[in-house]
Amino acid sequence: MKTNAYVLTISCPDRVGIVAKVSAFLAEHDCMIAEANHHADTHSGMFFMRNEITDIKVSDEEFRAGFSKIAEEFGMQWKLNSTCEKKRVLLMVSKQDHCLQDLLYRWSSGELEYDIPCVISNHLDMKALVEWYGIPYIHVPVTPENKPQAFAEVVKWVDHYEADTIVLARYMQIIPPELCQKYSGQIINIHHSFLPSFIGAKPYHQAFERGVKLIGATCHYVTEDLDAGPIIEQDVVRVSHSESAAEMVILGKDVEKNVLARGLKFHLQDRVLVYGNKTVVFA
Amino acid sequence: MKTNAYVLTISCPDRVGIVAKVSAFLAEHDCMIAEANHHADTHSGMFFMRNEITDIKVSDEEFRAGFSKIAEEFGMQWKLNSTCEKKRVLLMVSKQDHCLQDLLYRWSSGELEYDIPCVISNHLDMKALVEWYGIPYIHVPVTPENKPQAFAEVVKWVDHYEADTIVLARYMQIIPPELCQKYSGQIINIHHSFLPSFIGAKPYHQAFERGVKLIGATCHYVTEDLDAGPIIEQDVVRVSHSESAAEMVILGKDVEKNVLARGLKFHLQDRVLVYGNKTVVFA
Amino acid sequence: MKTNAYVLTISCPDRVGIVAKVSAFLAEHDCMIAEANHHADTHSGMFFMRNEITDIKVSDEEFRAGFSKIAEEFGMQWKLNSTCEKKRVLLMVSKQDHCLQDLLYRWSSGELEYDIPCVISNHLDMKALVEWYGIPYIHVPVTPENKPQAFAEVVKWVDHYEADTIVLARYMQIIPPELCQKYSGQIINIHHSFLPSFIGAKPYHQAFERGVKLIGATCHYVTEDLDAGPIIEQDVVRVSHSESAAEMVILGKDVEKNVLARGLKFHLQDRVLVYGNKTVVFA
Amino acid sequence: MKTNAYVLTISCPDRVGIVAKVSAFLAEHDCMIAEANHHADTHSGMFFMRNEITDIKVSDEEFRAGFSKIAEEFGMQWKLNSTCEKKRVLLMVSKQDHCLQDLLYRWSSGELEYDIPCVISNHLDMKALVEWYGIPYIHVPVTPENKPQAFAEVVKWVDHYEADTIVLARYMQIIPPELCQKYSGQIINIHHSFLPSFIGAKPYHQAFERGVKLIGATCHYVTEDLDAGPIIEQDVVRVSHSESAAEMVILGKDVEKNVLARGLKFHLQDRVLVYGNKTVVFA
Repeated sequence: MKTNAYVLTISCPDRVGIVAKVSAFLAEHDCMIAEANHHADTHSGMFFMRNEITDIKVSDEEFRAGFSKIAEEFGMQWKLNSTCEKKRVLLMVSKQDHCLQDLLYRWSSGELEYDIPCVISNHLDMKALVEWYGIPYIHVPVTPENKPQAFAEVVKWVDHYEADTIVLARYMQIIPPELCQKYSGQIINIHHSFLPSFIGAKPYHQAFERGVKLIGATCHYVTEDLDAGPIIEQDVVRVSHSESAAEMVILGKDVEKNVLARGLKFHLQDRVLVYGNKTVVFA
Repeated sequence: MKTNAYVLTISCPDRVGIVAKVSAFLAEHDCMIAEANHHADTHSGMFFMRNEITDIKVSDEEFRAGFSKIAEEFGMQWKLNSTCEKKRVLLMVSKQDHCLQDLLYRWSSGELEYDIPCVISNHLDMKALVEWYGIPYIHVPVTPENKPQAFAEVVKWVDHYEADTIVLARYMQIIPPELCQKYSGQIINIHHSFLPSFIGAKPYHQAFERGVKLIGATCHYVTEDLDAGPIIEQDVVRVSHSESAAEMVILGKDVEKNVLARGLKFHLQDRVLVYGNKTVVFA
Repeated sequence: MKTNAYVLTISCPDRVGIVAKVSAFLAEHDCMIAEANHHADTHSGMFFMRNEITDIKVSDEEFRAGFSKIAEEFGMQWKLNSTCEKKRVLLMVSKQDHCLQDLLYRWSSGELEYDIPCVISNHLDMKALVEWYGIPYIHVPVTPENKPQAFAEVVKWVDHYEADTIVLARYMQIIPPELCQKYSGQIINIHHSFLPSFIGAKPYHQAFERGVKLIGATCHYVTEDLDAGPIIEQDVVRVSHSESAAEMVILGKDVEKNVLARGLKFHLQDRVLVYGNKTVVFA
Repeated sequence: MKTNAYVLTISCPDRVGIVAKVSAFLAEHDCMIAEANHHADTHSGMFFMRNEITDIKVSDEEFRAGFSKIAEEFGMQWKLNSTCEKKRVLLMVSKQDHCLQDLLYRWSSGELEYDIPCVISNHLDMKALVEWYGIPYIHVPVTPENKPQAFAEVVKWVDHYEADTIVLARYMQIIPPELCQKYSGQIINIHHSFLPSFIGAKPYHQAFERGVKLIGATCHYVTEDLDAGPIIEQDVVRVSHSESAAEMVILGKDVEKNVLARGLKFHLQDRVLVYGNKTVVFA
């Protein structure tokens, strides 16, 4: 993406003239449109729009002030994000390292553009790895007894580091409902099954028992309903009778990390618009 | 496949010497092995084997008589099928024609080698199509009142035509339990979801509501438990926010017919060995 | 798609204000935008746009007259197609029937919305099938001697039936250069390899010899350079050592027909914009 | 895989009795067959066999001595590898790190079972990473002038570390013919295109120019003919008009590393049998 580039995303009730008003505003401010997608959802009556724009000639503040009038007129939910300001993504992990490894690599190689202010874990296993990358590793143990305090500490770190996104990179603790609400649309989880199949624990063992021929993974926003939030991305990989449940776990690691990386990429590039319990993904 | 070619499939408790005994027998009868697969399932302690053999120098009967002694010794379930004798596959269909069309085409083009003695339907919609292919079309209406008589008639036709396989090519009636038992491992169904997700009615509408990013289809043997029999083959296709439930139905047609065709192919070539509620598929 | 729905596609040199001008015009004419995609190609400096619009309140003619002024101002190539007027697609075929069968089925089931005014073939093999669907079958034999006359006859039929698209559904004759030019962007071919691999004859045999692990198909617009026109769609299927060249041919049939159907769908829905020897496909 | 487990692979001219002789020998030595695959290639008249066996009751030496008589009788090329003795894989890399990172991770996590005696590079870029994993990093600069000496040094290290496999994990130097011969079937390369398309330099830029809709990668054994050795594994990923050549390079990284990892896995598990310029892969 270019310097001085922005992504403007909009959701609002559909009616005639939305695009005309938005694009007139963009033209008045000399913006080039590098890529845009519009979608009218006839089921919900909503209109969704994503614009990658370059060469804004005014300041952020001036742009926002002007645009907020249009937004008010059309009842828009909207965001303007500079592609030069990287999102601040706090990673949480337990003992499985494949998703963390993958996200650290994609970060360090510049393949995915984002900042990692810190990694929080309820275990110490990943400390050496994370610190090798020069990233602070914060150990917040979680027990049945200390859960409220532990997650209060997580919140403290999220605030401290001004993280705007939290990625559960195989973090094996259930997030308390109040955090799900507080960070609605900001917590991304990778679930190791093709949801809604095999909700809950040990999905690969469930898949093995059922004898399915494909196993999958699901990247979704976290809500209070376990494994039931808006789905961002999914994928599957073929298995056969020759894989044990343990071998499915290993095969699943690839699909998990790839699905999480793609889902996060869509999120980082503001390609995901949530409505109700579903997503529009302008991939 | 060659003339004078056979497929020998075997399932039995695992122990040393099975392959030695079987292959010595094959060598004594001058058989060439064109393709073979062996799988030991450590979970169940079972051994599975499929051999494509050519150039048997003795008669079927002589071969069977000799081999049955080995089978007894090892507690084998086994089948010897000539690849020259096509399986007799009775098709059942309701009003959706895509799977039927596909199976008729693959049959007429020789892409899949099997006989279709007749097509049975609870409707008349497909009559002209089926008869154009020169295949008898048997109309067996099903109502809540006549269900036992209707399926008695189905059984009569299966017997009459000496069908060894029944394919439910989008046949929208539940098969009575006694038929499921009578034709265990012989009735193949295509379910229009990626089982075990979205069991029951209107799976595409369920998928649309949940906002999944992939929809699928499942080919399985029919058992008394609805949509829960041994899975033969599955596949998925990508969808997005831009597809309505109705458009998912259309996209799903392709994956349904392809999954059914692949599943049937595996069955026709004796590549599927059922054990418990699972399958070994030597694809 | 809705009644009274249009697709407006635009290609032009990129600059500020294109979308503003277009969408203002649409709003003035009370158009709703159901779906839109914009793409700025930084490599060529071109801007591409596709708008699905509904509820135009003026006549086609009035709309076109008004819009042509904008088009002139921005140097646009543009098309306005009603989604209610089906495209007229003339099919050409030789002896391989899988693509033809597939296109006929998708047409008759309404899965793909288009008209088939006639099928032209250099052989008689498909006559019964095509006529069963109630479509005229025109036999135009092609020999080295009569090629100019034969293709003059093809042109005559294209004109007679006012076809706007010609699909070569495994038509095994090379189209003369003058027809490639006359119908530029209107002739769609399916090539039975993953281009640019295995150009020319017997691609599956070439693939077998090379020992590739995937075989593919390519749907492209026909140009004077054999197998080198703008690619619309491609896909592959996995093969292994166990497939002979003849079995690859059979496996390839599925990927060929699916790639052609998807490519044609994109064309029918005006999702393909050609520039140079490449395509923008707003899939 | 189990302790005391072996893989026995065999290639020989096809005839009756091969399996009988081999499996009788295995049974005499009390071997269990965990998994086996046989393939008769009618094109070449060759027979290929892979057996995973457990519980050999005799020593390696005794087994080999006995089996070599059978091998001689049937003109077999054969290998017996213990799955307990990990293969020794020397990695070579230049400046691109994604394949190296991936292989190091799969090694350290035990996902792929092999030893890495050292990493050789013509650059210093990966030194810190490799040494963090505790693996020796050997810098062997290559210039047009020192090429013979440089590769003599490589050979020295291969011998010193008794490596049985060399993986070119994006190593951007052409391997001299004499090394290709010396280590025939032992050097694995990942090529960043779907071969035979786009042979040579900058395949992603070639793909961008041609406007293909899928890009791919190919894992193959290195021979004297550049990019033309026996193919082990291939895969592709979808691209569109919206990807620049630079973005294709990034997307291609995932498919490259996954294809290399799968190809290496097949090699490590002795699933690949080379014949002529092709492979049998018992995946």
